[in-house]
Amino acid sequence: MTGLTVGELGEQTLIARIKARLPPQAPGLLVGPGDDAAVVERPAGEEIALTTDSLVEGVHFDRAFVPFEALGHRALAVNLSDLAAMGARPLSCLLSFGLPEGTEVRDVDRLLDGFLAVAARFKVVLAGGNISSSPDVLFVDVTVLGSVSRRRILTRRGARPGDEVWVSGELGAAVAGLEWLKENRDSGFGIRDSNEDPRPDEPGLRACVERYLRPEPRVRLGLALASHRAASSCIDLSDGLADAVRQTSEASRVSLVLDAEALPIAAGARRWFEARGEPASDRAMAGGDDYELMFTSAPKCRRRLDAVRRLGGVRLTRIGAVERGGRLAVRRNGREDELPPGFAHFR
Amino acid sequence: MTGLTVGELGEQTLIARIKARLPPQAPGLLVGPGDDAAVVERPAGEEIALTTDSLVEGVHFDRAFVPFEALGHRALAVNLSDLAAMGARPLSCLLSFGLPEGTEVRDVDRLLDGFLAVAARFKVVLAGGNISSSPDVLFVDVTVLGSVSRRRILTRRGARPGDEVWVSGELGAAVAGLEWLKENRDSGFGIRDSNEDPRPDEPGLRACVERYLRPEPRVRLGLALASHRAASSCIDLSDGLADAVRQTSEASRVSLVLDAEALPIAAGARRWFEARGEPASDRAMAGGDDYELMFTSAPKCRRRLDAVRRLGGVRLTRIGAVERGGRLAVRRNGREDELPPGFAHFR
Repeated sequence: MTGLTVGELGEQTLIARIKARLPPQAPGLLVGPGDDAAVVERPAGEEIALTTDSLVEGVHFDRAFVPFEALGHRALAVNLSDLAAMGARPLSCLLSFGLPEGTEVRDVDRLLDGFLAVAARFKVVLAGGNISSSPDVLFVDVTVLGSVSRRRILTRRGARPGDEVWVSGELGAAVAGLEWLKENRDSGFGIRDSNEDPRPDEPGLRACVERYLRPEPRVRLGLALASHRAASSCIDLSDGLADAVRQTSEASRVSLVLDAEALPIAAGARRWFEARGEPASDRAMAGGDDYELMFTSAPKCRRRLDAVRRLGGVRLTRIGAVERGGRLAVRRNGREDELPPGFAHFR
Repeated sequence: MTGLTVGELGEQTLIARIKARLPPQAPGLLVGPGDDAAVVERPAGEEIALTTDSLVEGVHFDRAFVPFEALGHRALAVNLSDLAAMGARPLSCLLSFGLPEGTEVRDVDRLLDGFLAVAARFKVVLAGGNISSSPDVLFVDVTVLGSVSRRRILTRRGARPGDEVWVSGELGAAVAGLEWLKENRDSGFGIRDSNEDPRPDEPGLRACVERYLRPEPRVRLGLALASHRAASSCIDLSDGLADAVRQTSEASRVSLVLDAEALPIAAGARRWFEARGEPASDRAMAGGDDYELMFTSAPKCRRRLDAVRRLGGVRLTRIGAVERGGRLAVRRNGREDELPPGFAHFR
């Protein structure tokens, strides 16, 4: 049994349906959805940060175990994570769909539920977007505009030998959650009908699934790092810690050496990896989708970092050091190993 | 025979390849491609216009007869057309790809040729973007940021009874060109190997094919209309004149009555339609992809319009009148008919 599809509803009605869900007035929005382009007020005294990210069916998500509400959450959250990593404040966004004709309208509604809930929580105005049909594959492409003070931009380039490497939150949860979802895909958790989350019994693993489905962008932390000038470089963990280390090393032309024992691995993820006989620290470094921030900070900035810790609303852990050169290494039991590879498209 | 594919090249190498083609310094670009987000300078004294549009394989283009270079041209041009319709000046853009693994690298290069040529011509800085794999369907999603003075924004809402309806350039060329391409798809014009355009012998029809493949965004005209306050409303003809009339009527709550005899139908398109026994004015009104601007202007603004005509670099034709009510009509031989429908997704 299928409900009303977007093909039956029509493009204009779908746009009207989305517009009807938006607040009549939004701060800074001069021309909203429905004209040729959106117009938003320029940020006073700050520059413009811009980022875009796509979620493609079969690549970034599997409809069999990602509820549409979570897909909407994720589509905006991953972009907010990118702005957080620049120290930017999110302001407004564009939402573009590519929808197969047979997509059910209730699924688009649920996607909007998730998207608009994140938008409301982070005070991001939906300014416009685009709806296109798509032959087979559903995709969502989101652009977020934010503001950042010119002298407080956090890039990947600023890491210096002697800096410490820090990470927010916990690692490995998203990849453990994704693996549980894949293994239990066919066990009939029935998200198509109930729109309820698939739920493992074990609370630690349940937290992992939740982290995979609804990543938490570290917007407050990014803003606090920028406003206190507490970080020399910053990057988000979209493609995993190992990839973030590699990107930072290349952009800053430095070595990054991690301490395996220091990694804040989520308890549920650690149990999941160890039950499979896999080294938890390797899996946590390689796994993507955690959307935590990794940043570097000079030891002399420790008091600034204490202030950030109070504002950022998330645990911060020192996980390594920046050294001269271009090495990527992880130390454990006094030995140095190479980093495991991170996620990449086309690999 | 196929060349190197993006799957073989890898995501990071592909990004590096794109970055290598960009100028080392671009005006207003503080952080360019390769970090978590781009940072661009805010426009001095103006607000921010934002628009996004996708091109999806099998929906917006057919690889069999759209060379990749034209696809890149089109992906940026259609967004510039949206900004032109707001009276905004384009500044920077984001380019996102969804690429099947088997996409050839030379095709991505050609797409960039077309994209970057339009970017250079309109002084638009490529600030960032995203590369994702995609299961089967190639898609390109582009966002363009521009600037517009708050009091000069052109929307669809400002048409008033007594205004005249104007259109730039010529109508019907793109749809005639597309039809020729579809009819000759299998005749071996061999664009896959030569990357040359399919070319009809007849010059008028050749111009139609060129207009379909490489639409010309009316950026100068949009800026001139805004700076001279010569238009009460403005919209671009992405989905055809009939759709633009409908959208303007709904947004402004007025009637629009077109004069069929006044429509500036491209000569090659007129011959193409008439050879098929089809009414040229109906086809020209219904056909999309022309990317001209339709605007309304009060008769008392005629001297301002003369100044715009000198600046805009394109022919302007008066094609109808705005009246009270909510009618959409076309007059011919003293009779009034209903408008033909325009293009819509999911119809």
